[in-house]
Amino acid sequence: MRGGLREREDAYGRLVLDHLEHGGQIEIVERDDGFIAVSRLGPPAYFAPFRQWPKHERTAMRLARGRVLDIGCGAGRVALHLQERGHEVVGIDVSPLAVRVARKRGARDVRVLPVTKLDRRLGRFDTFVMYGSNFGLVGGRRRAPWLLRRLRSIANDGARIVAGSTNPYMTDNPDHFAYHRLNRKRGRMAGQLRIRIRHGAYATPWFDYLLASPEEMGELAASAGWELIRVVEHGEPFYVGVLERLV
Amino acid sequence: MRGGLREREDAYGRLVLDHLEHGGQIEIVERDDGFIAVSRLGPPAYFAPFRQWPKHERTAMRLARGRVLDIGCGAGRVALHLQERGHEVVGIDVSPLAVRVARKRGARDVRVLPVTKLDRRLGRFDTFVMYGSNFGLVGGRRRAPWLLRRLRSIANDGARIVAGSTNPYMTDNPDHFAYHRLNRKRGRMAGQLRIRIRHGAYATPWFDYLLASPEEMGELAASAGWELIRVVEHGEPFYVGVLERLV
Repeated sequence: MRGGLREREDAYGRLVLDHLEHGGQIEIVERDDGFIAVSRLGPPAYFAPFRQWPKHERTAMRLARGRVLDIGCGAGRVALHLQERGHEVVGIDVSPLAVRVARKRGARDVRVLPVTKLDRRLGRFDTFVMYGSNFGLVGGRRRAPWLLRRLRSIANDGARIVAGSTNPYMTDNPDHFAYHRLNRKRGRMAGQLRIRIRHGAYATPWFDYLLASPEEMGELAASAGWELIRVVEHGEPFYVGVLERLV
Repeated sequence: MRGGLREREDAYGRLVLDHLEHGGQIEIVERDDGFIAVSRLGPPAYFAPFRQWPKHERTAMRLARGRVLDIGCGAGRVALHLQERGHEVVGIDVSPLAVRVARKRGARDVRVLPVTKLDRRLGRFDTFVMYGSNFGLVGGRRRAPWLLRRLRSIANDGARIVAGSTNPYMTDNPDHFAYHRLNRKRGRMAGQLRIRIRHGAYATPWFDYLLASPEEMGELAASAGWELIRVVEHGEPFYVGVLERLV
């Protein structure tokens, strides 16, 4: 359980387990300016079979090849799908309960591991998948180049990152724009959320989760030996950026 | 707006207005021990027409008579129903936006007024309705006798309080029992919740909201010149207690 969360901190895993056991549907996310909301997607999306994924995720999944690392695997939807398609997949997640749920659902190799603890012991990969908006796990301007370089160090030639994100500027909610201003003022990227997930008596620690526009994703990638070669989107804030390893 | 909430504090009213305008369904309630959850009922219940109310509320509504005060009227479902049945109804709520919504929906006399500011200027009443679990607005062992005596002072002979509550002991959630223990340790009633409602960038101030068993409701009533004469329930934690004014 190296790097795993303590029990009461595993709010995401508890949410996922509650959905599995009792069908709970609601994920509560709190932001550090006091804004609180229910996830647009939530548990049903974390368990959705491939045919119910959003279109941009289905389209971009065609670009996965070879040995795959599923970063922030949650309840295992991506790992399960790619396994079935014949890929060798390793899934990692910081949540011990989510990993247990993914395993119970049939994911063959899922491990409790925060993305910051990734190293060569997992072997090398041809594809990194960061679905949902898990490109957000790069955190911000400081961690992103460090983490993307670390991925590069365990990437085979021609490897790709299939990186889901949410464009933070595609909103009409003034509270979100106020948060962007607050972030800029304190030296953070506009969409660099500081959030935690809360569920009953459980709360994750606060963590940074970056919502990046395609332009921002491209810049962060370029600073760390990757190139944004394609953006898959369908007029919504949610998109997948495809990053290719530069030689 | 005497006693009303400031804009960002009116999380309940914003929730109700969002439901009216955009169909939002989710109410988030945070407890002072860090427990957070979505209301079992929430906005759809606050707007429900009489035929969709829970059975215990429909049954107990037959006991309303004469001039009615609807305490914590919210979006106005009780006031609207009783008006239609020919009663003269005054609704009060601490939330300016909720009062505006109730008015927009046709409630004839609804006012922004916290229950603690009730006085003779509203006239006298034959029935007080505290639906949902709004008996909770009596707060706890200290405020309850004071508030119930104040209601008594504006009650006609033979007046009733039709008081909805939730029996806090009918649960199997260990986190709730832990909270009961915490409350007893700090000299509060077990079900004396300290909560706030949160909605986007809005949060109400923390307030006390008492979940009382029928026995506790009966004791609090007796200490303030009321008698619990009937409990309407159907095997669920939710019930209505009927209190009659002692002469």
